[in-house]
Amino acid sequence: MNTTQPNFSVIGGGSWATAIVKMLSENLDQITWYMRNNEAIDHILMHSHNPNYISSVEFDTDKLILTNDINKAVLNADVLIFAIPSAFLNEALNQIKVNFKDKIIFSAIKGIVPESYLIVGEHFNEKYKISYDNIGVITGPCHAEEVALERLSYLTIACANEDKANLVAQYMSSDYIKCKITEDVIGTEYAAVLKNIYAIAAGMAHGLGYGDNFQSVLMSNSIREMKRFIKKRYKMKRNINDSAYLGDLLVTGYSVFSRNRMFGNMIGKGYTVKSAQLEMNMIAEGYYAVKSAYIINNSSKKKTKTPIINAVHKVLYENKNPRKVFKKLSDKMD
Amino acid sequence: MNTTQPNFSVIGGGSWATAIVKMLSENLDQITWYMRNNEAIDHILMHSHNPNYISSVEFDTDKLILTNDINKAVLNADVLIFAIPSAFLNEALNQIKVNFKDKIIFSAIKGIVPESYLIVGEHFNEKYKISYDNIGVITGPCHAEEVALERLSYLTIACANEDKANLVAQYMSSDYIKCKITEDVIGTEYAAVLKNIYAIAAGMAHGLGYGDNFQSVLMSNSIREMKRFIKKRYKMKRNINDSAYLGDLLVTGYSVFSRNRMFGNMIGKGYTVKSAQLEMNMIAEGYYAVKSAYIINNSSKKKTKTPIINAVHKVLYENKNPRKVFKKLSDKMD
Repeated sequence: MNTTQPNFSVIGGGSWATAIVKMLSENLDQITWYMRNNEAIDHILMHSHNPNYISSVEFDTDKLILTNDINKAVLNADVLIFAIPSAFLNEALNQIKVNFKDKIIFSAIKGIVPESYLIVGEHFNEKYKISYDNIGVITGPCHAEEVALERLSYLTIACANEDKANLVAQYMSSDYIKCKITEDVIGTEYAAVLKNIYAIAAGMAHGLGYGDNFQSVLMSNSIREMKRFIKKRYKMKRNINDSAYLGDLLVTGYSVFSRNRMFGNMIGKGYTVKSAQLEMNMIAEGYYAVKSAYIINNSSKKKTKTPIINAVHKVLYENKNPRKVFKKLSDKMD
Repeated sequence: MNTTQPNFSVIGGGSWATAIVKMLSENLDQITWYMRNNEAIDHILMHSHNPNYISSVEFDTDKLILTNDINKAVLNADVLIFAIPSAFLNEALNQIKVNFKDKIIFSAIKGIVPESYLIVGEHFNEKYKISYDNIGVITGPCHAEEVALERLSYLTIACANEDKANLVAQYMSSDYIKCKITEDVIGTEYAAVLKNIYAIAAGMAHGLGYGDNFQSVLMSNSIREMKRFIKKRYKMKRNINDSAYLGDLLVTGYSVFSRNRMFGNMIGKGYTVKSAQLEMNMIAEGYYAVKSAYIINNSSKKKTKTPIINAVHKVLYENKNPRKVFKKLSDKMD
């Protein structure tokens, strides 16, 4: 083992966590990997792949310290990467008994913490007094499935501390992963959150019978809305057309595999929220995100026009008819 | 007939010309429609639909003055809409013997005139001394196929003269067509031209085996390149994320029906330019556009970085290996 390497711990057993462990294992001799599911851990140890997500990826298990003890994972880490649904973050954090104040913490979560209405970086900063110098974000555009296939993908690594951004970028990069760094922790994380809402909107439009012409106009309006929203949250010089913002929106909004788009599509086709969730057997991140984003924008003094977020909120939380809501939305787009 | 209506003549018999005649016929009692193909004219008169393009569209032939005499079409017109491939524009214009200096001329062409290396508006201005006050552009994002299905679509009508933009917008609008106006004649037309090049690049990437993650990064880099390119041609305040620019790029770059994307895809898969053109039995506008755009940028004092245009040019005109060209291009993207 190369003892000069930093210790990375990945928190999560889903497809994105699995993809991150794969990317890191191209460069690291040892990675601690926490997941709740003991059967999955046993399966990985025995068969070298995650039975539930991107299972074509084969791991060198000699490199992995698999554990279902989150405190062990935290204790082992110089760099902690969280890749669990935002809805479960609070529960996971409540289990941590060891001190993680001086760890470098990266979020790969792409959600708003429902208990605090904060994005993950803000949550760590406000609730756990972690300095922004130690907080970062890993963002796409990147489907885990294409990481599994080693198809060329680009990540953006955000951290106020450039050295720490570079450190994570260095260990995530490989033949098929190119990393770019930025200081925009708040903007990249909000972009990753909001894009799921716009993907739900794209799915709803598709389900309602709108076509490709409309979809392109919806995406064009979405990126302008995202720009306004993020600017109100944290104003800095950023190009909203960079891959971490526009690219991430497109890879999700145009993907037929996106669970957010799929969820929206079912709603557009007439499923109720409940039945769509039951049918999909998982919950789309955007379902929570739209509630939080709606509240964040409307309760803020720095409010902006968000017709698309409002429309998705109307359908999912105000029991409004999607056909009528999208008819009205279409009049506001250009 | 409502004699207060202006006289529109549409020049062209392809799918976009056919879609434009359909849109106009929602509002006008009479439209002059020129096409070269006499058999198609006879077919439309007899069967009420264009046999060759979006043939599901049924016309009220009482409204149509069909002609294969371009001079008759020009003579009839207050507003002339050109919707033929840019490669054939010069030939068509050479046949016009009547004076059209005071006609309102709108381009729906989306190409660069190969003889002059000018976009259509500039060509009319420089070669025919038409005032910019009488020159406009009709642009998407808009697949003709979805107009045929009456799926909600958004057009941008550009003209330096706001009244003339509004006039055309008024007669193109309907239940399923929303029109927006802008002064940016040069920018919208360049966007419509450049997007075909980026769609070829997207097709090449797909043909070479790059995935959705890469595609989203390519589109993100394309819109930034388009912004730089257009800014150098004509600087004005514009939002490159408006539908006429970003929307038009996306509807083409993400469409599996786009002939430009299809052409690029065949090249990526290993077809030669000649064999791809023979196989497709039509020529993608982007094939000409990339040559012109490359020359315009590189011969200009106001040159900008155009790695994607350069890459497509290398493959199509410099006989370079697409795999190697895209490997190098991927290092320049972020």
